[in-house]
Amino acid sequence: MQPFIWESRIRFVDTDASGRIHYTALLRHFEAAEFEFLRAIGCAYTSFLDEGVGFPRVHVECDYLSALRCDDLISIAVAVDRVGGASFTLGFSVSMEGRAAAKGKIAIVCIDPATQRPRPIPERMAAALRVWL
Amino acid sequence: MQPFIWESRIRFVDTDASGRIHYTALLRHFEAAEFEFLRAIGCAYTSFLDEGVGFPRVHVECDYLSALRCDDLISIAVAVDRVGGASFTLGFSVSMEGRAAAKGKIAIVCIDPATQRPRPIPERMAAALRVWL
Amino acid sequence: MQPFIWESRIRFVDTDASGRIHYTALLRHFEAAEFEFLRAIGCAYTSFLDEGVGFPRVHVECDYLSALRCDDLISIAVAVDRVGGASFTLGFSVSMEGRAAAKGKIAIVCIDPATQRPRPIPERMAAALRVWL
Amino acid sequence: MQPFIWESRIRFVDTDASGRIHYTALLRHFEAAEFEFLRAIGCAYTSFLDEGVGFPRVHVECDYLSALRCDDLISIAVAVDRVGGASFTLGFSVSMEGRAAAKGKIAIVCIDPATQRPRPIPERMAAALRVWL
Repeated sequence: MQPFIWESRIRFVDTDASGRIHYTALLRHFEAAEFEFLRAIGCAYTSFLDEGVGFPRVHVECDYLSALRCDDLISIAVAVDRVGGASFTLGFSVSMEGRAAAKGKIAIVCIDPATQRPRPIPERMAAALRVWL
Repeated sequence: MQPFIWESRIRFVDTDASGRIHYTALLRHFEAAEFEFLRAIGCAYTSFLDEGVGFPRVHVECDYLSALRCDDLISIAVAVDRVGGASFTLGFSVSMEGRAAAKGKIAIVCIDPATQRPRPIPERMAAALRVWL
Repeated sequence: MQPFIWESRIRFVDTDASGRIHYTALLRHFEAAEFEFLRAIGCAYTSFLDEGVGFPRVHVECDYLSALRCDDLISIAVAVDRVGGASFTLGFSVSMEGRAAAKGKIAIVCIDPATQRPRPIPERMAAALRVWL
Repeated sequence: MQPFIWESRIRFVDTDASGRIHYTALLRHFEAAEFEFLRAIGCAYTSFLDEGVGFPRVHVECDYLSALRCDDLISIAVAVDRVGGASFTLGFSVSMEGRAAAKGKIAIVCIDPATQRPRPIPERMAAALRVWL
């Protein structure tokens, strides 16, 4: 199976006075990749609004391997690292012109917005994610 | 009457690769000043949640007069420029060590979140704002 | 001449607790449109680094006409409103499914980064911008 | 020794359409705490500009333990987790009204901006950090 790749461009607002990308800005690009991956597998977050599921991110980690600068065009490969009962973890590998630039993970938990308590991953989402394990 | 002043510090995340503040970042500081001004006059936005009032910002403008850099400590003077039936306008004057750094305005409209239509400014808010005209 | 259009998608990080886009987040999309417009006319900001030109934004204004939400796909039409000796103004018209969503302007001044003083717009940039007046 | 505590307020721009804080926004508050901690121990990043030291963040991780909302006043306790030869790690514990809200780490490497290669931590910084181990 081909990995899911999302291409994105580093913007000026993403940079800081060091001349490189600010470490938090890359996480906005992860989010675009996360949402587009879920849309691509038929599980856009917005498609679960009527079922009453919220998807807070409960863990993030990222290693920054090489500097990124304004206008750099990056590729973000998205992987499914784990599918649990009420949560799942996505992995992100960023490269720029073939060079590894960052590697990160985000854990997402499914909650009932009314109670703010964890609830099982919707079955169609769990099934779609497991294909990518 | 003394003007309302909110002090804030420019952060590294606020800067961009030019070495100066990114123009959008200053608006986050305006927002802190806006919320603290309204809290100071007894009209914190969150105090209107039960009355069903939303406060979208419908207009922004800002002139950037001199560069700001990481760690600069700024003073933001907040003024009430206009109080209308369903909206009001706040003015922001930013200075750094006595030097003018920026001047901006934000217009806020009161809406009913259920219909997303404009509604009158809550009377206690209009009264509190008019004191500052 | 066809207007320059940049398509962009509203992201979750762009929204706020009102459920709509935060007013400052739209300016990040303006910036992408600004940089892509300049790249399209052969004047990417990064192509002027060797000539020693900085491009601080000195004025922004925006009217927010209708609410945008997560995943909305917007079209940003970029226009050249003014080309002066040392500065220029770009206009941005945002629409979503044919409905006007926002209208904004950004004024950019050309500076010499060494002195931080205004300098003339590079001639090839002024010429390329004037085509769009 | 008393822990270093930085108080900060969650802003509207920090929230997203879930009604809670966006996970990336908390990292802006970590940055304020990081810079203020270093200033408090006599090692403000800006005080090293003349020595030619850059401080890119090379690793971040954070666990989000409970939801934060607009206007919440948080306390961020900063700890020094590790002081190496060319890098150091800070830990952040966020609480809101005594309840744990998040726990994170940031690893910072010292580089020579000219070569972009790691270099030893400036001795006065290493000494000041070790006091907090």
